[in-house]
Amino acid sequence: MATSKPVFLVIGAGAGIGGHAAQRFAAGGYHAVLARRSDEEGLQRLVDAISDAGGEASGRLLDASLPDTIEELVEDVERSIGPVEVALFNLGAQIGNRSLADTTDRMFELGWRLATYAPFRLARALMPRMAERGQGTLIVTSATAAVRGNAGQHSHAAAMGGRRMLCQTLNAEFAPQGVHVAHVVIDGPVDAPDTLGKMLGEKFDAFKAHKGQDGLLDPAAVADTYWHLAHQPRSAWTHELDMRPWTDVPWWNDN
Amino acid sequence: MATSKPVFLVIGAGAGIGGHAAQRFAAGGYHAVLARRSDEEGLQRLVDAISDAGGEASGRLLDASLPDTIEELVEDVERSIGPVEVALFNLGAQIGNRSLADTTDRMFELGWRLATYAPFRLARALMPRMAERGQGTLIVTSATAAVRGNAGQHSHAAAMGGRRMLCQTLNAEFAPQGVHVAHVVIDGPVDAPDTLGKMLGEKFDAFKAHKGQDGLLDPAAVADTYWHLAHQPRSAWTHELDMRPWTDVPWWNDN
Amino acid sequence: MATSKPVFLVIGAGAGIGGHAAQRFAAGGYHAVLARRSDEEGLQRLVDAISDAGGEASGRLLDASLPDTIEELVEDVERSIGPVEVALFNLGAQIGNRSLADTTDRMFELGWRLATYAPFRLARALMPRMAERGQGTLIVTSATAAVRGNAGQHSHAAAMGGRRMLCQTLNAEFAPQGVHVAHVVIDGPVDAPDTLGKMLGEKFDAFKAHKGQDGLLDPAAVADTYWHLAHQPRSAWTHELDMRPWTDVPWWNDN
Amino acid sequence: MATSKPVFLVIGAGAGIGGHAAQRFAAGGYHAVLARRSDEEGLQRLVDAISDAGGEASGRLLDASLPDTIEELVEDVERSIGPVEVALFNLGAQIGNRSLADTTDRMFELGWRLATYAPFRLARALMPRMAERGQGTLIVTSATAAVRGNAGQHSHAAAMGGRRMLCQTLNAEFAPQGVHVAHVVIDGPVDAPDTLGKMLGEKFDAFKAHKGQDGLLDPAAVADTYWHLAHQPRSAWTHELDMRPWTDVPWWNDN
Repeated sequence: MATSKPVFLVIGAGAGIGGHAAQRFAAGGYHAVLARRSDEEGLQRLVDAISDAGGEASGRLLDASLPDTIEELVEDVERSIGPVEVALFNLGAQIGNRSLADTTDRMFELGWRLATYAPFRLARALMPRMAERGQGTLIVTSATAAVRGNAGQHSHAAAMGGRRMLCQTLNAEFAPQGVHVAHVVIDGPVDAPDTLGKMLGEKFDAFKAHKGQDGLLDPAAVADTYWHLAHQPRSAWTHELDMRPWTDVPWWNDN
Repeated sequence: MATSKPVFLVIGAGAGIGGHAAQRFAAGGYHAVLARRSDEEGLQRLVDAISDAGGEASGRLLDASLPDTIEELVEDVERSIGPVEVALFNLGAQIGNRSLADTTDRMFELGWRLATYAPFRLARALMPRMAERGQGTLIVTSATAAVRGNAGQHSHAAAMGGRRMLCQTLNAEFAPQGVHVAHVVIDGPVDAPDTLGKMLGEKFDAFKAHKGQDGLLDPAAVADTYWHLAHQPRSAWTHELDMRPWTDVPWWNDN
Repeated sequence: MATSKPVFLVIGAGAGIGGHAAQRFAAGGYHAVLARRSDEEGLQRLVDAISDAGGEASGRLLDASLPDTIEELVEDVERSIGPVEVALFNLGAQIGNRSLADTTDRMFELGWRLATYAPFRLARALMPRMAERGQGTLIVTSATAAVRGNAGQHSHAAAMGGRRMLCQTLNAEFAPQGVHVAHVVIDGPVDAPDTLGKMLGEKFDAFKAHKGQDGLLDPAAVADTYWHLAHQPRSAWTHELDMRPWTDVPWWNDN
Repeated sequence: MATSKPVFLVIGAGAGIGGHAAQRFAAGGYHAVLARRSDEEGLQRLVDAISDAGGEASGRLLDASLPDTIEELVEDVERSIGPVEVALFNLGAQIGNRSLADTTDRMFELGWRLATYAPFRLARALMPRMAERGQGTLIVTSATAAVRGNAGQHSHAAAMGGRRMLCQTLNAEFAPQGVHVAHVVIDGPVDAPDTLGKMLGEKFDAFKAHKGQDGLLDPAAVADTYWHLAHQPRSAWTHELDMRPWTDVPWWNDN
């Protein structure tokens, strides 16, 4: 459905940062387009929750690792819903720690395909359109692995390090054309049942209890910061910032 | 006068970021305490403007380079006005470019005294109080010189580099006690008549025209980001971020 | 031919850093194995020059972008020549500046394939062998694009940023097993006819003249530093360092 | 005594990095001038050891925290011994971990005075002379605290962060004049009886045993890297590098 509202597009819209960002932007007057790989039911629940709260939202399934999917999504959204004012790339590529010997070609390539190549594809499909309109925002959820490589993170860190440098090249080309690029280093665990929750399984509750009160990043709070970033006037843009819970040690400190 | 509002204290309250931050926090329900070195009249104008807009504000003159001044200010504000909820250290130490041979002992020491030692003193006077209360925020306005040293910036970069590392040590000690520390890298010229304006003199207007529309950091926009930082819930704190106008090249890029 | 000498293996052995490193290690008592993609004649000239100087060298042609090539090279060298004591990954992926719209999928993927995936493959083929032997060194020639993304460098910076984070993960896993990993940020033009020379063509001489005396990185000097790195005792290892000509502005400074 | 050899001057010449660097440069044909704050006997032993090994050395006592001492040392050495070709600033300011409340004004200022202001003074006294001669090297031993601030390091990190930015400003001004500046991040414990040994006292041996074989930075190995840095041709200079034992986790990794 076409909308008269500005469009917010999120790739990687689960029950964590992506879903909460969609809610936040919908509450703020955007039409939120939520895209994710699978779980059509879960996606519909998110869309419905936004509608029930009086907001506008649409859902799309897409596999960002396949050719043309991202490009077609952007084309489709821009044509059938409206020009994307704010896009959030919110896919990660964390596969847990693996020794080098246990990191297969397929894992290493998939990390790149999802975490470096996919945001490149989103940017190439979308940012020239934003530049032509002289405005727009691309927010990229990133991770500690974008700024330092820990043991066992061969695939993840290589992919995220590439993502960070990509964001700097995008910013260098598009900021002077009026398009804001923000790279957000999520430097702590997120209270997200679809990602961390699935990774930890039944240990998730114990992990949360161990972390204590407010010891995991509340995805709604992250979404609020994304909203703030997307609405900084162009005279005062932030390109990079970090986020972590108060109880967590920043990546540069000893544990 | 004692207040029932939370207190916002800014050291370095001119017509730029400091003054606008005071206005922003006063508008948001804080009692703003504005401290600066000189120009009692200018200070009173800022305080009056806040009052006229329906806010609460007080002014203080202090020379942050002298012993005991910052400590007494904190003591006085906490006793006579109320507990400081958010503090902004907003003094710089830019003296323009000077060759090493032309950088005197006095300049080098003054840079340290204002830009490194003064925020240390503010932190030591204030943060144990905040830690005891289990909450509070310290925002430190910083500069590109905190992350890279350019030619001629011997005093400024040494002082700002020290400031940045100090903020990381403060964060490491106080974040786990519930106190938020944010280090903001202002990576572009601010539209501030009291600092950049005075430095450039009658060339300021030509400089602004050359920079083009929205080509200088609007201090009101910076103040909005400070407001956002101070109100991030403790599950999702940002320690460092950069800010610059859309037309400005980030410090890590070629001009 | 089998050798009684320790083996130095370089992937990316042209007339620049790679070839000079081979000469340096051969002069220091290593058997140098030079691998490059094409120009069998040029390769033979490098091998002959080393032999003529009294050193030992072998040449191999390989296309690092193809499956199994690097893995087979390592297997072949270790079996037929001897255990690799020091390896140098010296392939770049610079394609000049291109706008995002002009950066094709093929370019972006090739950048990754040569600059991120190829060193991962070398590491996975070689480093477990080194770890088993409890010693060895991997030096990776890197570039400014590994630490900041400039306009037009979408492919190159994403690939090099991934390379840098990969090197940190390799170091984290293998340093405690006695294998040294060094990531060298080449932050200036190299006096290399095979790469920069070919890129600039007939403008190369004018470029060199413009840069002035010692204004390009002498690849023999870089090779001396690689030699030093490879022979630091394990109590005092360097993981990262930068190199540039005296006349060049570091990447973090304004031009 | 005047010398025909090039002069190597080290400030902070104990039995660790400073003393070993003096030995290394003396063995390489320099006249080594060793300066330290106290222990005239220990200083004389170092000078004698160099002489006994066939090298040239002189000793000087100086308190780098006092006015004019560094300036007079440079003046005296240049006049009575010879032009300083390589200088090493090797004083630290580590005082162990202290909470903010326990960090006195005196400690914070002394940290700056020794770790930031003293190298500035050495640079200002020496580098214009080097620039006039069109050559020379300044090596600065630095620490992890220069790149990240850990809890309890308020004084040390602020001082070292300032030192690092100072080195970048020195490099920006003096590299184009032919003077090499190198900032070395010592990111691990040094096997140095005069500093770490004194700090740990009788626990030093147990600490070394716990660290295992080659588990502390061998100061002689660090000295070899300093020698290498000082002799890089100007076409291929390194400004910053890190050093740590193979068993130590780099500062950017989790412990």
